[in-house]
Amino acid sequence: MLIALLTDFGNRDWFVGVMKGVILKINPNVNVVDLSHEVAPQNVKEAGFILWNAYRFFPKGTIFVCVVDPTVGSDRKIIAVQTKEHIFIAPDNGILDFVLSEVEVLKSVYVENKSYFLENISTTFHGRDIFAPVAAYISRGVDLGELGEEASFRKPEGIFVEASTPGDYIGEVIYIDRFGNLITNIKPTADIDGEVKIKEYIIEKISKTYADVKSGQLLALIDSSGLLEIGVRNGNAKELTKADYGEKVFLKVKKI
Amino acid sequence: MLIALLTDFGNRDWFVGVMKGVILKINPNVNVVDLSHEVAPQNVKEAGFILWNAYRFFPKGTIFVCVVDPTVGSDRKIIAVQTKEHIFIAPDNGILDFVLSEVEVLKSVYVENKSYFLENISTTFHGRDIFAPVAAYISRGVDLGELGEEASFRKPEGIFVEASTPGDYIGEVIYIDRFGNLITNIKPTADIDGEVKIKEYIIEKISKTYADVKSGQLLALIDSSGLLEIGVRNGNAKELTKADYGEKVFLKVKKI
Amino acid sequence: MLIALLTDFGNRDWFVGVMKGVILKINPNVNVVDLSHEVAPQNVKEAGFILWNAYRFFPKGTIFVCVVDPTVGSDRKIIAVQTKEHIFIAPDNGILDFVLSEVEVLKSVYVENKSYFLENISTTFHGRDIFAPVAAYISRGVDLGELGEEASFRKPEGIFVEASTPGDYIGEVIYIDRFGNLITNIKPTADIDGEVKIKEYIIEKISKTYADVKSGQLLALIDSSGLLEIGVRNGNAKELTKADYGEKVFLKVKKI
Repeated sequence: MLIALLTDFGNRDWFVGVMKGVILKINPNVNVVDLSHEVAPQNVKEAGFILWNAYRFFPKGTIFVCVVDPTVGSDRKIIAVQTKEHIFIAPDNGILDFVLSEVEVLKSVYVENKSYFLENISTTFHGRDIFAPVAAYISRGVDLGELGEEASFRKPEGIFVEASTPGDYIGEVIYIDRFGNLITNIKPTADIDGEVKIKEYIIEKISKTYADVKSGQLLALIDSSGLLEIGVRNGNAKELTKADYGEKVFLKVKKI
Repeated sequence: MLIALLTDFGNRDWFVGVMKGVILKINPNVNVVDLSHEVAPQNVKEAGFILWNAYRFFPKGTIFVCVVDPTVGSDRKIIAVQTKEHIFIAPDNGILDFVLSEVEVLKSVYVENKSYFLENISTTFHGRDIFAPVAAYISRGVDLGELGEEASFRKPEGIFVEASTPGDYIGEVIYIDRFGNLITNIKPTADIDGEVKIKEYIIEKISKTYADVKSGQLLALIDSSGLLEIGVRNGNAKELTKADYGEKVFLKVKKI
Repeated sequence: MLIALLTDFGNRDWFVGVMKGVILKINPNVNVVDLSHEVAPQNVKEAGFILWNAYRFFPKGTIFVCVVDPTVGSDRKIIAVQTKEHIFIAPDNGILDFVLSEVEVLKSVYVENKSYFLENISTTFHGRDIFAPVAAYISRGVDLGELGEEASFRKPEGIFVEASTPGDYIGEVIYIDRFGNLITNIKPTADIDGEVKIKEYIIEKISKTYADVKSGQLLALIDSSGLLEIGVRNGNAKELTKADYGEKVFLKVKKI
C-alpha cells in the first residue's frame, strides 16, 4: 500500500516527519511517498493543482493525504473520497476540486470517527492527530463507511478553459514552476494552432517543444499535463515577463 | 525497523543521500525516514527541539540518527542512548537534552568500536562514516554494549519553564516555524488562563485555537506539543512582532 | 532493489512525486531514494559532481536516475550504462563524466525502446515519461540490451587535477556546499603538505580537520571525497572569500 503526502508544512520543521512516524506506528508496512510539502503556506488552490498533475500517475489504491488547512481548529469538515483508482483525504475546502472535476466519485464521507484519530487531538495539528492516523487505518483496510456520514458532494465545474474550436479564449496563470514556466488553466482538447498573448508579449504560434525556438526566446506549448504553458528556452518566463499568478492569458485558436 | 534522520545537511548536497546509501548497503530491509535536514547549520538547540517534538510519535524501536555536529573532527564523543521506546545516536553536544529531560535512559554508551564504522573515516563527514553505519548495524540487531564503554550521563534540567500555578513566568522564543509561529519554552501543565506579553504586544487571554480570533490578529495558545505559542491567524507572528529566537516572553497565570 | 533519483526538479512542484508514482506503479517493491533534487536548474556539471560524491556508497545493483536535461525535447539521446556495481540512466550530455572517468563500463546503450516508456510521451517531461518507467523496468529485471543499440563511449579525461608530486598545480572551485565550503577539482593522491592560494588569501598548510584551526579561520583540507577543500571553522568560506564557481585555486605541493 502507498500513502502520498501533500502539505504546506515545508521540509524544515518536524511536521512531515511526525506524520510519517504516526503512520508507520499504525501500519509499519505502508510505503509513504512525498508529493510536495513546499506548497505556499495556506495556498489551497496551488495544492489542488499539484495534486491534479500527479494523481493519475500513481498506483491503483494509493491514498493521498492533502493537508493545506487554513481553517484548522474551526468547524470545517474533513472528507475522504474514494474514486475508481484512488482515495483522497483532505479538508473540505476545495483542495480536491481540480481532481474531482474529472473523476467519478464512488464514495465520499466526512471523517468523524474518533476511534481512528490519535487519543489527544490538538486544535492546530490535525495532520498529525487526524489525517495521518486515518490514512494509516485505511491502508490497513478500514472502509470509508466506518469513518463517518456520507458527505454532500457537487462536481466542481469551470476549472479549466477548454479550447477545442477556433475562437478567442481567456485564461490565467494558475501555477509557476521551479523553472519559471507560466502554466495556465487553458486546456486545448486537440492539436491546435494559435496565437498567445500575455501582458505586452505576443507569441505567434504554439510550439511542440522548447527546442523549437532559440535560447532565450519566449514560447507557448502544450505542457506535459495538457495545459497551455508559456516558457523561455534555457530561461525563465516569470522573470522575463514579470507575470504572476492570476495574470490573464489570451489565446486565439486559428485552426485545429 | 525504522531509522529516522535529523541533520543540518540540507537537501541540496549529496550528504543525506549518501547516508541512506550507506545504511541500505548494510541493511537493505530497514526503512529510512527523514525527520528534517533543514536545521540551521550547526544549530544544536534547534535540532534538539525538532527531535523533542517528534520522537514520541514514532514506532517503538525507531533509531534516531541526529547529526548536527559543529565540532566534528575534534575529540568530541558520539553517544548512543537506549530508552524504553527508542534509540538515539548523536554527538555528545547537548542535542539530546530536550528528549533526555523527560525519558528514562536504560543504557547509554560512547560509540567507539571501529568494527561498525566505514573502513576509511574522514575527519569531516562522520554522518556517512560513523553515524550511518552504526545505525544500520543497530537496526540489524547489534547491541549498544558492543559499541563502546558506558557513557556518563546526567539528566538535563531547566529545559522548560513549567507554569502550573498562578503567578508570573518568564520564558523565551526557542523556535519559529515555517508559518512564523513563535514557540516558547513555557510549558503549562494544566489548562490555564493568563496574559501573555512579548515586546510591546499584550495578549489578554490564551485561546483554544486560531479560529478563536479574527484574521490577522495576534493570539497565544497551547500548541500541539503542549508549549505556549504566539501566532497570527492567517498571518505570520514573526513578521508582525519582529521577534526572533531568544526574545523574552512574559506569562501571568491568573487561574487554573 | 534500489532506485536513486538525482534531478534539478526541486522539491516544491509535483515532478519528483510523479516520478515515484510512475516507478511504484510498475514495480511496487522497489525502494526509491532521493539523492538530490535541488541541483541548480539545468546545471549538468553540478549534478555530475553530486553523483560522483555519492554513487560508490550505494549498494551493488542500485539504479541511478539522473535527470538534468536542458535539451529535453531535442534529438539528444538518453543512455543507460552498466558498471560492475551500478546502473546509470541519464541524458547523454556529460552528466555521467565524473563517474565514468573512474569506473569500468560493462555495457552502454541508447534508451530507445518505447515498450518501456509511458504510452504518451510529452516533449518536456521525460523524467516522468521515459526515465522513471525505464528505471522501474530495469529494477524488474529488464536487461539493458533490450533498451536499444549499443552506445558509443569514450572515457572522459582531465576531470580532476591529480597532485601527486611536489610542484605547482592549478585547479578551480567546482562546488560550494551548504556550509559555504569551496570544493576544488584538485585531487591529491597521497598525504601532501603544501600552500594553497585563492584570490588574495594564502593558506600556509593543509590541515587534517576543522578543529586544527581557530574559530573563524580559513583553512584547506582534503575533504571526505578526497578533494582539496577550502573552508572556515564554524564559518562560511564562500562569504569570507567571495569566491564563486570557477574561481582559480593554486596549490604548491612542498613534499609528500
